[in-house]
Parts: sequence; structure tokens; C-alpha cells
Amino acid sequence: MSGNSFGNLFRITTFGESHGKAIGVIIDGCPAGLEIDINFIQSELDRRKPGQSKLTTNRKEEDKVEILSGIFEGKSTGTPIAMMIYNKDHKSEDYSALKDLYRPSHADYTWERKFGIRDYRGGGRSSARETATRVASGAIAKLLLAHFGVQISAFVSAVGAITNPLPYSLLDLSLTESSLVRNPDADSSKLMERAIEEAKARGDSLGGVISCVIKNCPVGLGEPVFDKLHADLGKAMLSINAVKGFEIGSGFEGASMRGSEHNDSFIRADNAIHTATNNSGGIQGGISNGEDIFFRVAFKPVATIAKSQQTVNTSGEEVELSAKGRHDPCVVPRAVPIVEAMAALTLADHLLRARGNRI
Amino acid sequence: MSGNSFGNLFRITTFGESHGKAIGVIIDGCPAGLEIDINFIQSELDRRKPGQSKLTTNRKEEDKVEILSGIFEGKSTGTPIAMMIYNKDHKSEDYSALKDLYRPSHADYTWERKFGIRDYRGGGRSSARETATRVASGAIAKLLLAHFGVQISAFVSAVGAITNPLPYSLLDLSLTESSLVRNPDADSSKLMERAIEEAKARGDSLGGVISCVIKNCPVGLGEPVFDKLHADLGKAMLSINAVKGFEIGSGFEGASMRGSEHNDSFIRADNAIHTATNNSGGIQGGISNGEDIFFRVAFKPVATIAKSQQTVNTSGEEVELSAKGRHDPCVVPRAVPIVEAMAALTLADHLLRARGNRI
Amino acid sequence: MSGNSFGNLFRITTFGESHGKAIGVIIDGCPAGLEIDINFIQSELDRRKPGQSKLTTNRKEEDKVEILSGIFEGKSTGTPIAMMIYNKDHKSEDYSALKDLYRPSHADYTWERKFGIRDYRGGGRSSARETATRVASGAIAKLLLAHFGVQISAFVSAVGAITNPLPYSLLDLSLTESSLVRNPDADSSKLMERAIEEAKARGDSLGGVISCVIKNCPVGLGEPVFDKLHADLGKAMLSINAVKGFEIGSGFEGASMRGSEHNDSFIRADNAIHTATNNSGGIQGGISNGEDIFFRVAFKPVATIAKSQQTVNTSGEEVELSAKGRHDPCVVPRAVPIVEAMAALTLADHLLRARGNRI
Amino acid sequence: MSGNSFGNLFRITTFGESHGKAIGVIIDGCPAGLEIDINFIQSELDRRKPGQSKLTTNRKEEDKVEILSGIFEGKSTGTPIAMMIYNKDHKSEDYSALKDLYRPSHADYTWERKFGIRDYRGGGRSSARETATRVASGAIAKLLLAHFGVQISAFVSAVGAITNPLPYSLLDLSLTESSLVRNPDADSSKLMERAIEEAKARGDSLGGVISCVIKNCPVGLGEPVFDKLHADLGKAMLSINAVKGFEIGSGFEGASMRGSEHNDSFIRADNAIHTATNNSGGIQGGISNGEDIFFRVAFKPVATIAKSQQTVNTSGEEVELSAKGRHDPCVVPRAVPIVEAMAALTLADHLLRARGNRI
Repeated sequence: MSGNSFGNLFRITTFGESHGKAIGVIIDGCPAGLEIDINFIQSELDRRKPGQSKLTTNRKEEDKVEILSGIFEGKSTGTPIAMMIYNKDHKSEDYSALKDLYRPSHADYTWERKFGIRDYRGGGRSSARETATRVASGAIAKLLLAHFGVQISAFVSAVGAITNPLPYSLLDLSLTESSLVRNPDADSSKLMERAIEEAKARGDSLGGVISCVIKNCPVGLGEPVFDKLHADLGKAMLSINAVKGFEIGSGFEGASMRGSEHNDSFIRADNAIHTATNNSGGIQGGISNGEDIFFRVAFKPVATIAKSQQTVNTSGEEVELSAKGRHDPCVVPRAVPIVEAMAALTLADHLLRARGNRI
Repeated sequence: MSGNSFGNLFRITTFGESHGKAIGVIIDGCPAGLEIDINFIQSELDRRKPGQSKLTTNRKEEDKVEILSGIFEGKSTGTPIAMMIYNKDHKSEDYSALKDLYRPSHADYTWERKFGIRDYRGGGRSSARETATRVASGAIAKLLLAHFGVQISAFVSAVGAITNPLPYSLLDLSLTESSLVRNPDADSSKLMERAIEEAKARGDSLGGVISCVIKNCPVGLGEPVFDKLHADLGKAMLSINAVKGFEIGSGFEGASMRGSEHNDSFIRADNAIHTATNNSGGIQGGISNGEDIFFRVAFKPVATIAKSQQTVNTSGEEVELSAKGRHDPCVVPRAVPIVEAMAALTLADHLLRARGNRI
Repeated sequence: MSGNSFGNLFRITTFGESHGKAIGVIIDGCPAGLEIDINFIQSELDRRKPGQSKLTTNRKEEDKVEILSGIFEGKSTGTPIAMMIYNKDHKSEDYSALKDLYRPSHADYTWERKFGIRDYRGGGRSSARETATRVASGAIAKLLLAHFGVQISAFVSAVGAITNPLPYSLLDLSLTESSLVRNPDADSSKLMERAIEEAKARGDSLGGVISCVIKNCPVGLGEPVFDKLHADLGKAMLSINAVKGFEIGSGFEGASMRGSEHNDSFIRADNAIHTATNNSGGIQGGISNGEDIFFRVAFKPVATIAKSQQTVNTSGEEVELSAKGRHDPCVVPRAVPIVEAMAALTLADHLLRARGNRI
Repeated sequence: MSGNSFGNLFRITTFGESHGKAIGVIIDGCPAGLEIDINFIQSELDRRKPGQSKLTTNRKEEDKVEILSGIFEGKSTGTPIAMMIYNKDHKSEDYSALKDLYRPSHADYTWERKFGIRDYRGGGRSSARETATRVASGAIAKLLLAHFGVQISAFVSAVGAITNPLPYSLLDLSLTESSLVRNPDADSSKLMERAIEEAKARGDSLGGVISCVIKNCPVGLGEPVFDKLHADLGKAMLSINAVKGFEIGSGFEGASMRGSEHNDSFIRADNAIHTATNNSGGIQGGISNGEDIFFRVAFKPVATIAKSQQTVNTSGEEVELSAKGRHDPCVVPRAVPIVEAMAALTLADHLLRARGNRI
């Protein structure tokens, strides 16, 4: 059983290799009657595309989305929404360097061992190019969520050793997009920029952390005992290329706290029930409680570096590798819309799932 | 769509409330011909049951498992394996204290808001009692994996602020069970014991971290792009009560590293391809690479504490709560077999899924 | 991937062998707040149980249902509803006759070839005893549907060569239960009774046809293009032991009609849109149109007969078989509640699925 | 939960409206290493396309398939295979006649009631044009099955009241394609041709029956108790536009037989176990037994006819309709490859599912 679908009721199935003819996605289960703003979908893709700034790869890709079905007179019809992004023509390129060896910390070796065959051109299906289809379908999930008032905002909270020291509640998240690294805190943003430029100059790469805040999520989303909302969010994030960790609310730090510190007291405020603190991260017992949902996602440094590395070729001989080509020295600025998209896909699915909760 | 099933091909469906007649699990998809050692299943449950040591609740529950179907002449037959654990008789107990209020950082409020009705006796379905069915079914997953040589070992690596400082490769994991806290490092184990006893004495609770190592996993498990092996492991762990974080391999620490440090060079050793380091945690591109799989799971402190707390009752009035009853001051020692069980269920599912990879 | 679950949102998973400890079912996805009348569930099981009349096996089984979870204070809570039916003690019986041979037109041979192991006691999992769990869970589906006004009525329309000649619209379906064969037409019912008694006397068996009518189904159930409502009803029926055929509306007869005869004209009646005829059987384009849903299900004659038959044993030698024991000469009277149950499970699932159709 | 996917392990997801930009399909789960002959896929599509003969619509559509992913150097790679069929440009057409009324026995009314919005151009998603994607993906399923020796052959066995009187065992199925109606029996084929031409001349339409034979299916496919092989085949067939009935083996006729007639005795032949007769239709207890799988599918007459009909418009007023345009007077000749495709998709899925049956 293959793993190219995500979600149950709001369900996407994606396809496509980095250097094939196209990548694309089918959304099955988008409710009928949703107004679809194609410009919004394209704008989300533009946030992800390469070549946006001096910090990202200067590889240019247009990533222009085309909708083939499921929309009629500007609205979703309840039928599958298919979206395509055609790849540019790579025919003339030379892949012989990649064909015969396994790049360190890439998926070359594991894919070849798993399937016995590997489309080595640009990483094939294992390329992060695949995430463009997540962003395109996530944009439609965002439109559905926005219809119900839900807002998702991710931002970069660490690049390498540089961290944004402020809790999200003290940040103005509307500033995220005006920062080259997508960190709404100007001071740490500048330091991160510099760190990325230095890594790039050294032929090296950096990891980072993305934080995500979801506001106005309805109470009651999440399906225990296995499909707890944060479990599905966690899976969604961990399925993104290069992600190594996920934490919700207090996360790993919470593990070192005492119960009396960590518990979120219920209080009465604004004529409703709220919690005084939010170590739970907006989810209790796997179900959203109406507070802000807050989580963090760790990205490893980009595996492709210009520096020379040791590896093994497909004949099992040890060889040296010096990557050529244009790659991001740090992926997190471009991964912000991907994190948002996967969060949106997860929530849209749970929004529909919760419709079956009561008679 | 409810969430009481886990896995796709090796699939469990669980049921039962804390104070109902029974809890139980059906495994659908266990291949025929597997020898089922019922004593092993019971021994796994015994590792999870309350009252094992002075560190856990002194509530006594037998958690005796009974198999109702799917086994014939000692072997699995390919039909569903149903397992039951009857609850002791709780009829005489008084739940009025729980009925009318929402315990802080518990699931009372969210479940009631979600379903409009709540079995308040002992937490109902949201109780961690439910995890016994994970351990029972996970034991059968372990038997299946053992048939193919796979070994799963979890241990406690932090309790509150006390951490086991050693990497797993320097630990003798066979010592885990002889430690009251299930930490194979004697020195930090003692400190953890003391920390738990102190928390208990203060009417407080502690969180902690469990580490898990999987040895001898076949190369090729994991189904990109969404069902990456570590994404499914992450979801499995995050679905366990009280879990707030998950990281694989280098995890959050990896986010602050440079690519040249983080990349795992391929080498030739023992006539096979291996990696010189294992920041990947045994999974690359979402697929197992044959190295040890290694991950860490963060547990928040137990929400039920003896100390007095502020909360709100079902009428929305603010009230004070002092929990009575016997609860664990720290859940991680008993959660070790749960982590192993969920890892086993995840791997068993992917073992079967990988059978479709090649013609 | 095993096949012991049915439904997507209203989903059952069943277990149990004919001569194991128990059979049972978990319903996951029943919405919270539904009043559960346990007596109704038991009464449905009583319609299916053996030994009801001179026409069925005189084997006595009580089939008493026990609910273990998911109900609190008389209502569904949204958590899994587990139901158990314990088997009587078969320990003293002798199965050696069945152990070593393959009964004609039974599942002995195929199950053994598929799984390499077979619980030969009473047919194991392949026994129609399994259908009791369909009836128990179907009863809850019926309660859910009744809440929305939907009514399901099946009846026997043929036994062997004897057919009930009247269309359902001319029958009083409230009379079904007062007929031993569950045919509301008294005249053909008598003939059927006699045919069954004759077959029994000859040591032979008969097949038959069950018709089913669903009244008051909401417009809009069914999920094209693959999960058309009649496609899922067809699968549901074909999954019942001994079923060889399914037809909806005009069915096979419709294949010989002309379009101008077959088309159901839309008309305006009772201030709503209806069809003048109902060759569609209440479903158009895979979606219910508000007219009566009508289908027919063909059952083969019972495979177990007293007459001597040729077969092969597990060593591949040809042997003669004369079945002993007490079996139904015709299964259709007892299959009426099974057909209704599977129809109810299918509709309950689609009722919930349709909740996602519109924003 | 929408219904645009079919299969579990060999799984297709389709999209597209009749008059949208394109229709297409993603196959997820095709094992790696399968040689993909694109010409074969196109040839299967050509068997389905309109305008093949004087008996079908003279509407011309090219239905040219393009593969976008999942194939590398002529072989499947284990990643999703996306296939596209672009629609011709319909921009200039006038749909006002269809926009405002509900065609009898079409899906116009039910789709509009279900989703609140309807792409009325050419029937939108409810058009049988959608079946082209089934044929394209079914062709790849056929390639997979052929690798394991399985052969699927469907043919027309009835058109209106004209039936092919011979059992399939007396027919030369290699002659099917040389008959305009796809009936390998020359005599009845001629009668059917004439019947279709007469219906066409009268502005009317005819239904029919397609029979299907599967040879060399491995023993052991099918997953009881719900996913019996014939239950999944039945659903597959009933999901095809215009299908009203399905029967396996003896089918409805079997319902009137006695057990002693109907039972298939096991015999020893060719050094293997076989059955002397095949009323079971190659499936016993829901599992293939190695004999020919044989089933029949009933198609209603095409709903679109030139003759004038009564119907209702979207304002609920009764109006008269005379269909214009070019439609098939009888769909069964073109439905033969669709039946084969759905059978192939069902078997391919079960072939992979059975890989989990034994340890």
C-alpha cells in the first residue's frame, strides 16, 4: 500500500517526479459551494518557489498551477479538483553524476533498495519539488478553513544556532512575509540572514525551526484515540522533506516541568471557558479546545552541499562527491508555506470528520 | 470518521472505557502461520500495569488478557484476533466529583464539547487505561517482527530535569527492566527514582522522555511521500496519552547543525553499505536504510495531582479541585512498553505494506 | 489487507469463528446522542437465530448480545460500541470428519489454500454464524436511520422455483414476520413452505431470492463515481454467505427493455419532484432520488445436504461425503434480517458521508 | 467522504468532467518493475472510444492518453502513475437546453440536489466519458495480471431481447473483437446488430448484458468476510454507468436450483484439485478456487433518446424534452473494455492484498 495520499475526507493524492513532465494533485472531498480564488493558490505557490531572494537557490521555476476539474463558475462542485504544475524541460541536462552514486543523507540509496529502480534525475519523486502540490492543495484547504474563520500562520523561529527569542504572542505575525527569512522579529531575522549567507559562502548548509500558530480553530476537532489532532498534525509535518522533529504546546520542554506548573487552569473569560495558560498548545486529549494551536517543526540542514563528501557508488565503491548545481543553503524560509499547507490539509480533514460526531 | 483504528494492513481497532465492562482490541491483518505465545502477551501487559513498584500508582489492576478468535492450534489463522481485558467492578464508586467539572489539562472539557455527552467515570475512553489494548496488540506485532529478526527496545532517558547523559550506543539495554524507572543507566536511574518520590511526596507530578531503538529493521520500509516511516512512527507516538513531542535521529538538535556535520556519509563495511554516522536515525527519505532506527518521545507531567488547582465546572463556575485517588506521579516508566508497542504496530504495518513494492 | 471491516464513516469490524469462544463486532463512528434500545438489537438477532420454526435448523443457539462499551446512560457516546455474542461450548464435539476433507461448494478448500491453516470446526470463520454480528451492528444502524425516518423492509420473493408474483407495491410488508418463510404474500408463502419441507425430506436444499425496499431515504446519498449507492448496496449483499446475484430497480429485466420504456419521467407531485415510474430503483447516477430504493438478492441453495456427494480429501483422494448434523434446508427465511442489516449499514455509512457534500 | 478512488493497494483516483479541460487518473500502488506498454493502453482506449462503428455514436473523440509520471525507462518505478486524456474544445457549444431541466433517468436531478451545484455541460462528472480513465488504468492492471498469467475476456451476451444462447465454454472468445457488437457468436451477433440499428432508427435505445470470463486466476484471492472477491467484482461492475445487475456463476438462476444440483463436486484432475462443475463461478467462500471466474453484468438502455419525453425543469415545471446530439443507441459494445478494466483493477488489488495472507 503506497503512501501518496493524505487525509481521509478532505483527501489529496499527489504525483510526479522532479524531472518528469509534470507534478500534480487531486483533491477528493472538497465540499461543494466553496469559492475558489485561483490567484490565491498561485500566490501560495509563489511563496514556496525557488529564486525568491538572495537566500534561496537562484534556480528559476515558475510553478504555474492549472486547474483541470472540479470547479464550475468559480465554485467547487464536490467533484475531484485536479491541479497540474508542468515541469520545465530538462531534456538536455546530464545526470550521469547522480545516476551511479548515493548522495549522503539523500533518499537515493533507500529508494533504489526499496523499489529496485530509481528515477535519478533531480531526485525523482524524493525531490522536495513534490511539496509544491502540497502547497497548491493546501491553499484550497485554507480557503475552506477561512470560510469557517480559521487562520494559520507559520514563521521561522530558528536558523542554525540563531533563534528568535520571543514567544509568538509577542510577535506581529503580519510581518513574517516582509522578512527574507520569514521571521517576524527583525533583529533575529537579520542574524539569520547573515548566517545563511555565511553558510552559502562556505559551501555548507543550515537547518532551522518553523513555528506555527492556528487561531480560531473550532472546539472539538480531533478523533481519539489514534487520530488525535496533534498526532495527525505531527504526521503531516514529519512527512515534509528534511523534518526531524515535531512538538506541540510545551513540547520537549514540558517533559521537564512539574504537573502543577504545566497544567492549564480552566477559567471563565469573555463569557466562555478558556485556559489561563496554554501548555497544551490548544489541544487536550487529542481534541482542539478553542485556544491557539501552537507547534514547532525541526528541519535538518539541506543535504546537498558544495563541500566535498565521502560516499559510495552503486557498485559499492567508496567515492568522493562535490555537489554541483544551485541549491538552497537553508530550506526553512521556503518551507513556511509548506508547513502552513500541511496544517491546513490536516485541519480541513478534521473539520469534515467532526461532522459525524453527533446525531 | 472516528479514530479508533491504527494501521492499514496490520490494523488494530480498539474499544472500551476505563470503567465500562471491558476494553479490547481486534487485530485484522495478522498473517496466518505466526506462532502466538500468549504468555508473552501477558508479560507485556504486566510491564504496563499499575502497582508494579513504589514509583507507580498502588492501584491494583490485573489486566488479564483473553484471546477470543483468530488463533488455532497455537497459530494465527489469518482471521481477526480479538483480545479482551475485563475491567474490575467499579460499581460502588462515587464519581460525582468528576461528573460536574473539567479537570485541568485533562480531556473532560474537549470530549464533552465534541460529543455532547461524556462518560465521566474514570475519564471514560480518554483514560490511559486504553493503552493496555495497544500493548496487547503490540505484543503480537512484536512476535511478527521477531520472526523477521527485528528488535525494539525503549527506555527512559529523562524524568523531569534529570537526564540519562549517555547515547544509547553506550548503554546496555538489557538492563532496562531491572531499573525501577526503566533507565538502563544505574546512576541517573537512581536520581530519577528520587525525583519521582519527591514529586509524589509534594502531591505533584513529573514528565519525562522515552528513547526507542529499533535494531535489524529491513531496508526499504516506509511509503513516501506521506507515509514516511518516521511520519507514521511520529503519529503513533503522538497518539499516546500525554505525549507532546517526537524527534527522529538528530531531531531538534539537528536543526542547529550544518549540513557538513549532519550528513551521514555512506561507507562500505561488513560487505554491505552502511553510514558512518546516524543522524538520519535509520530512516532516509522516509525509508529505513538498515541502520538502527532511533527516536525520542516527550511526555508531559501527569495532569492529575493532589495539589489544589483552579478550574471550572460544567455550569461555567470557577471552582477549586484537589484530586483524590491513586495516580502515578510520573508516567514514563510504565509508558516504555506502550512506546514499544506503538513502534511495533507501525513497523508490522509497514513490513506488510512493503510487500507490494515490487512486481 | 484483510476484509473484516465494512463501511467508512459508520464502520464495523467483526471477529470470531463458529466454534471459538465468541463472535463480536466493534462499531466505530456511530454518532453520539443516539438512543440505543438493546431489546431491539436482541429482537433483530432473534429473527436470524436458528431453530425459529420447523423450516429452519433445529439447532438451538441463544445468540444473546452483550454491549461492552460506547453506551452511557442509554445513549451512544461517540466511542466504539463493542458487542459480543458468546458461543456455546462445543468442546466435546468431534470434527474429524470435517478436518480432512473439502466439502463441495463450501469454503474449506479455498481458505486452506489461502492461509495454509484452517479452523475446521463448524466452518470456522467461513460459517454463516458470522452474520449474527452483521445483524447486531445493523440493528444500531437501523436505529440511526429510523432517527432520520428511513425504513428498511426485506422479504422472501422466491424459494427454489416458487416465486411471489406480486410487485412489492401490492404487498403489505407488515405481514412478512407472520409468515414462516418471511413472504408477505400468503399464497406463495404456503407453496414455499411446502417446497422447503419437501427438500428437507429429500435431504436436499433450496435457494431463493430476497427483495428489499427502503422507504424515505433522503435525496443525495451515494458517492459517485465508484461508491455509487447501489454499488455499495450490491457489495454489501454479495458479501453475505451464499449470495450469487444482485439487481437494483429493473435489474436484469431492464437489460431487455427499450430506453423509451425504461426511462423514469420526472413529474411534479405532492409539491415535489418525483418520477412517474421507478425502473431506476430509487437511485440515479449512483445517488438516491427520494423514490423507494428497491433491489433483489439471489441466494444459492445451502451447500450442506444430507445426500451423498463426491469430494476430495486433504490428501487429494476422492471420497464420498454424507453430511450429518442439523442444517437449514433453505437459508432465505433467516437471511431476511441479514439483508436488512447490510442495507442499514450501507445507508448509515452514506448518511454520514453525505454530510461532507456541501460547505 | 467522496468516492472517486477504487481499490486499496492497487488504487486509482480519477477526476474530470465531460466538458472540462481533461479527465485523468492516478494509479497509486502499482509495483515497481512492471514493463509498461503505452501502445497497449492506447489500444484499450481505442476499444472504448466513440465512433468505432455504425452501431455507436458518430461523435469523434480521440481519447489520446499521456503518461506524466511513475514510468522510467519503460518500467513502473513504484511511484504514482498519472495519466491524462485531454478533452476537445467544447467552448462554442450551447448547453442552455441542459442547464435548466432534468433529463429522465440521468443524474442531473440527483447531482444538483446532492451538491447544490451542477456542471451541466455534457453531464459533467456523471457522464460516461469518465469511464475512459477506468480503461486506461485498467490496462495497466491488465499488464500486471498478465505478468502473473491472468487473462480477462468480456463479451456481449445480450442486446435487448436478443441473447447469445451459448455458454462461454462453447465460444471462441478470440472472435469477440471481430464482431461489431463484441459478441463472439456470429449468428446472434448479426441479430443484435440489426436490433441496434432498428432502435437507432426509431430514436430509441437498447440495454444488454455483458459476460466476463477470467482464466488462470491464482487460488486464494479475495478477503472474507466483507471483501469477498465476487463482492468486490460486483461493486466494481455496479459502479459503471447504466449497470443494474450483477451475478456470479449460477447467479439468479442458481436461486431456483437444489443443492444437490448446484454443488460443485471436487475432483482430482491434471494432478490438481478441481471442481466437476462451476456453479460457484470460480469463487468459493469469497476466495478464488482456481477455476474460471465467470460473471454477468446487466446494462439498462441508454437514457438519452431522440424520442420526445416528459420531464421537469429546474423550476419544477413539467416540460417536454427531445434529445439532440449524437448518442449510442446501445452502450454494451463499447462497455466491454470497461467491464474488463474494472475486473482487472479489482483483481490487481486483490493480487497485492493476498501478499499479506501468510507470514
